[in-house]
Amino acid sequence: MSQRTELESLGEFGLIDRLNPKEYRKAKNSSTLFSIGDDAACLEYRDKIVLVSTDALAEGVHFDMVYTPLKHLGYKACVTNFSDIYAMNGEPKQITVSLSVSNRYSVEALEELYSGIYLACDRYGVDLVGGDTTSSAGGMFISITVIGEADKDRVVYRNGAKVHDLICLSGDLGGAYAGLLVLQREKAAFMANPKVQPQLTDYEYVISRQLKPEARKDIIRFFRSKDIIPTSMIDISDGLASEALHICRNSETGCEIYIDRIPIDIKTSNTFEEFKILADTGALNGGEDYELLFTIDQKDYDKIKDEANIHIIGHITDASSGCQLVTPQNTTIELKAQGWNHYRKQTDN
Amino acid sequence: MSQRTELESLGEFGLIDRLNPKEYRKAKNSSTLFSIGDDAACLEYRDKIVLVSTDALAEGVHFDMVYTPLKHLGYKACVTNFSDIYAMNGEPKQITVSLSVSNRYSVEALEELYSGIYLACDRYGVDLVGGDTTSSAGGMFISITVIGEADKDRVVYRNGAKVHDLICLSGDLGGAYAGLLVLQREKAAFMANPKVQPQLTDYEYVISRQLKPEARKDIIRFFRSKDIIPTSMIDISDGLASEALHICRNSETGCEIYIDRIPIDIKTSNTFEEFKILADTGALNGGEDYELLFTIDQKDYDKIKDEANIHIIGHITDASSGCQLVTPQNTTIELKAQGWNHYRKQTDN
Repeated sequence: MSQRTELESLGEFGLIDRLNPKEYRKAKNSSTLFSIGDDAACLEYRDKIVLVSTDALAEGVHFDMVYTPLKHLGYKACVTNFSDIYAMNGEPKQITVSLSVSNRYSVEALEELYSGIYLACDRYGVDLVGGDTTSSAGGMFISITVIGEADKDRVVYRNGAKVHDLICLSGDLGGAYAGLLVLQREKAAFMANPKVQPQLTDYEYVISRQLKPEARKDIIRFFRSKDIIPTSMIDISDGLASEALHICRNSETGCEIYIDRIPIDIKTSNTFEEFKILADTGALNGGEDYELLFTIDQKDYDKIKDEANIHIIGHITDASSGCQLVTPQNTTIELKAQGWNHYRKQTDN
Repeated sequence: MSQRTELESLGEFGLIDRLNPKEYRKAKNSSTLFSIGDDAACLEYRDKIVLVSTDALAEGVHFDMVYTPLKHLGYKACVTNFSDIYAMNGEPKQITVSLSVSNRYSVEALEELYSGIYLACDRYGVDLVGGDTTSSAGGMFISITVIGEADKDRVVYRNGAKVHDLICLSGDLGGAYAGLLVLQREKAAFMANPKVQPQLTDYEYVISRQLKPEARKDIIRFFRSKDIIPTSMIDISDGLASEALHICRNSETGCEIYIDRIPIDIKTSNTFEEFKILADTGALNGGEDYELLFTIDQKDYDKIKDEANIHIIGHITDASSGCQLVTPQNTTIELKAQGWNHYRKQTDN
């Protein structure tokens, strides 16, 4: 970036105009009646259910500026929010973006961040309808609220899983965590010797899983096309183990998950091997994959069995059986969440 | 606060349970179908318009921990958001709270903050339906998204003012800014000599305007009871001058505002006098009063003329006349916004 415009040179309204240019204010959704430019945005949802979710990302906790391009950060901040709406079997329609940045960031840097936000909004058909940008004492903090819709009889909660339901998963797991390990290693090497070129060529897949995740809009569309309503669903932000336990606790059931059925890409398992991490462990506890974990009634088995993007990894049992991992040797291990504790992570680092 | 529980000792889900106890999760509004505990909250608005607004407060920019009790901060963060919904002639119904805090804050401190959030929600009939709490590299940042409703034929925008409409204002102005001046003075005295007791007894009114503002729910209810629909409306967060200019720019009109009609409480003008600030200037440019500025058709004059809480301060003119302040001597001064630029304020301090 050759130019640097200081934030204070624009003022609040100048900044709003610069970050939300008129050409982006045209609504993509009929539910968006009035967007930026008044005290509140006006939406109309009629017979649809309105879904609302908020997720925040903090510098130094959820992202590291050393290896996170701003455009990717804006994109990821949106996609992680969209994922929460898909996890209810809904479609995201609007977002508001709340941003706090120190004067260390220029207007051009925020434009770069917003270019990622607009790209995500374009790809997922979402309108940016409001927000607030303010200065901070230090670092960057992004909070996005997403508003979406679902048909009333198609909303899927975490609490509807029933005994004998099949446990299914979209995509593959562990990639985002593997990518984070690579980025942290290269950062450490760079800090020790800034002349070292980062070695990233063999890691495109896992790095893109970390820096530029996608939300599973395609799976929600697939459900609609096949007339499937999952009995429960959650997105994988904190790791499969943690999310499976959420479904079982909320549904008052147990589960059996077959370790050798957990889908792991070969590039992910190769990376874990380098870091001397068991691939299963990485896939069970690594976060930020934004895949969908869901349960379906066995009667829907035929509808999904040929879908390459969906893997059946286990089934729901009664609560008294507990939550179990089944090994290839057919022994069981109790499922525990090591999970993702950002508070603890910050203390550790 | 005698006890101090560290944030990292609870983990994310423990913290959610602690800050959102079950007894507070009972919905007050029929539009709240499902609140905290899944990937998204579920709302139902049917034939109502859904209003959405987001406002953020950053430590060191919007509030100073030296003189801001955490309970007040939580209350104010809510009320400033509710005010945006009232300014559309709507009623706030749900909020999500996004919070970023450093480990310097204990769990008990966050509970104190949340006690103010719950108090505001109780008083204004709003449900807390979601949010995200995360650690930050430094300081505290609160972003609240409020969702509200309005009848489709009663939404009031900034752009509907017509020539000859009356310009009206709820309550009185300048108090919040006067309170800020007192708090900053006492902070400076305390920093210079920590043994000095703060002198606040004569300033209860202005300090409460700064630390514990209220939003004008009563005015919106009054409009409904009298079957009044303002032609335009905005809430006063950045000062009367700035907000009046917003209405005129959006409505493509001019205005005449009579300086001696601007309501200023005697306790506010006394405080401004101490600080050698002209009361009119303080009332025109001081922010954060959260009163409502609105325009009505002259035919509604009889409905509001006896209402003690509403002051007619001027009228709308055509755009070519510009925006003017009329002095008691009947001369005119062009209305300009000095406004509230948080970026500049931070640089100045």
